[in-house]
Amino acid sequence: MGTVIMHNVVSVDGFIADEKDDVGPLHEWYFSGDTPITGSDDPEFDHSGGGSGFRVSRASAGYVRSMWDAIGVIVMGRRLFDQVNGWEGRPPTGEHVVVVSHRPKPEGWHPEASYHFAGTVTDAIAKAQELAGERAIAVNAGDVGGQILAAGLVDEVAMDVVPVVFGAGKRYFGDIDGQVLLEDPHVVVQGDRVLHLKYKVRR
Amino acid sequence: MGTVIMHNVVSVDGFIADEKDDVGPLHEWYFSGDTPITGSDDPEFDHSGGGSGFRVSRASAGYVRSMWDAIGVIVMGRRLFDQVNGWEGRPPTGEHVVVVSHRPKPEGWHPEASYHFAGTVTDAIAKAQELAGERAIAVNAGDVGGQILAAGLVDEVAMDVVPVVFGAGKRYFGDIDGQVLLEDPHVVVQGDRVLHLKYKVRR
Repeated sequence: MGTVIMHNVVSVDGFIADEKDDVGPLHEWYFSGDTPITGSDDPEFDHSGGGSGFRVSRASAGYVRSMWDAIGVIVMGRRLFDQVNGWEGRPPTGEHVVVVSHRPKPEGWHPEASYHFAGTVTDAIAKAQELAGERAIAVNAGDVGGQILAAGLVDEVAMDVVPVVFGAGKRYFGDIDGQVLLEDPHVVVQGDRVLHLKYKVRR
Repeated sequence: MGTVIMHNVVSVDGFIADEKDDVGPLHEWYFSGDTPITGSDDPEFDHSGGGSGFRVSRASAGYVRSMWDAIGVIVMGRRLFDQVNGWEGRPPTGEHVVVVSHRPKPEGWHPEASYHFAGTVTDAIAKAQELAGERAIAVNAGDVGGQILAAGLVDEVAMDVVPVVFGAGKRYFGDIDGQVLLEDPHVVVQGDRVLHLKYKVRR
């Protein structure tokens, strides 16, 4: 089974964007360092599907590269899929994408690409596991990610914490209802304008 | 001028208690270690005003002790003051307390204690600075803390991040409106069931 990792960049108060989906300064650290990252892109960030431009601190580069390299499948919501038109069939990292959506895949949409549509988060993770083999499954934090966590299907929570208070906006854990215990972070990496934290979900 | 430090224990999604003011597992780390802390108590935690019982990890002990030792004045909201009846005139750490409240100090209430009431957050911090000298001013995070931060009167934000998702509840930054940039954390201490982070507010 592949490890299911919920991931996003987040403010110190738990927001991944403001009310208008503007990420403000949350993603600046991706461009403010001196170490280029090439070969893959951060799924929740690079909505264009482009493959370059990321320059992070050395500490962040080590963390981000190993994260991206581990990912085989991306699970995303329909909203993000529509926003970026599924990166035109080329997932920024990994080879497969599973979209959580009540609507089917648009007819004739990039038939060559390994994109799959599932009506529930449970079906989405089952499909993702089938595709992932031993590789990791990246779940975009936010509404769909929160639902997958609430369903007990997330193994790890990866938060790239940026030192800014948002006050309001789109939440990392979406509308999750009820407390979820995590283990102490097994990864704590200080980058420049970002603190990388990774927690296992307590079972 | 004393450093104004906003402080509280907080979930990974920014909550200091649930909707009913229940802190759930947020304060368990205060009692689960092997290193006793004596001599003062954590203001936002110890509502009884008692002076013992805290047993934290060695790493947390070093952090918490130096924090408590630095504090000369506590600034708190009226709600917390009423809940704990001002710790009966004995602040858990430091010698002075400033209460943000539109109502005056209850008549005849502990005349021996250095407790002061201020109608606005600006007046509260001015009074606290007068009392603090070179010592630090601890501001309880939450609604009043968020107002003090929004007013530009907070120097540092100290978050004791507990690995739990709350989903809803009372927020560390209260109802703050608008983004506030912080510096990268200058303190990152891993305790047991808590990660101590301290950020300077960017000026």
